[in-house]
Amino acid sequence: MACTDIIFRPIGTIHSAHKELDKILIQPVFANGIKGKVVLKPEFIDGILNLQAFSHIYLFYYFHMSQKTRLHVKPYLSDEEQGIFATRAPHRPNKLGMSLVRLASIEGDTLYIEDMDIVDGAPLIDIKPYIKRFDLRRSVRSGWHDEISEDTVSARGRRNYDRGP
Amino acid sequence: MACTDIIFRPIGTIHSAHKELDKILIQPVFANGIKGKVVLKPEFIDGILNLQAFSHIYLFYYFHMSQKTRLHVKPYLSDEEQGIFATRAPHRPNKLGMSLVRLASIEGDTLYIEDMDIVDGAPLIDIKPYIKRFDLRRSVRSGWHDEISEDTVSARGRRNYDRGP
Repeated sequence: MACTDIIFRPIGTIHSAHKELDKILIQPVFANGIKGKVVLKPEFIDGILNLQAFSHIYLFYYFHMSQKTRLHVKPYLSDEEQGIFATRAPHRPNKLGMSLVRLASIEGDTLYIEDMDIVDGAPLIDIKPYIKRFDLRRSVRSGWHDEISEDTVSARGRRNYDRGP
Repeated sequence: MACTDIIFRPIGTIHSAHKELDKILIQPVFANGIKGKVVLKPEFIDGILNLQAFSHIYLFYYFHMSQKTRLHVKPYLSDEEQGIFATRAPHRPNKLGMSLVRLASIEGDTLYIEDMDIVDGAPLIDIKPYIKRFDLRRSVRSGWHDEISEDTVSARGRRNYDRGP
């Protein structure tokens, strides 16, 4: 272990119906209505005080099913190669996942989530609230993503889309 | 080191004019026009292919100046205690920072950033693009943040705000 290593310890676990990596929905916006939950370790429950008043939260987790690292990838929505940092693909040097999800309710140590796109069993690293004032940016250029039609997004952003040979 | 530890290695370093933690601007939206840069390690430069076409990016970094962990905090903008996961404060169990910043330009290994709110020297963990389709959510409740007036935000979201005795 190098002295510059950053060590995080899971604060909980993500539970979802997505058991296989290749069948997963690729973003929460495509997982409309699909439910899941986050179970916190007991020692972190105090940290969610007042979180229930937020409708949307960011979940940060470890892409525990992803082993490869690739600096160029073809994202699910595109046939062009993109730099890994210009995508949300899991094959990143540090396998940090981020999903912006809807928080339905909280009961004890459990957060009930809607629009769940995360693989079952992913170790939870952090939770941050979605704050409109900070996170909603209207005048945005989204690179290669802006060139993809809503039809393409709609077709490819689902399970079992076959990119073809 | 426990077997469940998650180990990340810095992919670069963040450079900014913010040398002291207590003088920092608390969010990129308050750091309007303040510039900084991100220098990538050479082995990761290939990963930024096509990133320059995005106007906004998320930077993920280690809160390297933050030692304490607190599950309840009084955020800069509020006098009420909040759970750490209902805030963006650095005193989190895993000291993962996220800033949504404007990407001005890229030259070689260096990303030039506007609206920089990060402390100088922070180790970079990841970069993700801000994708309007995924990240811009209009119908949002932002909990305690929604109760704070723009005047309060404007007054407190700056350097050297004194919360008083």
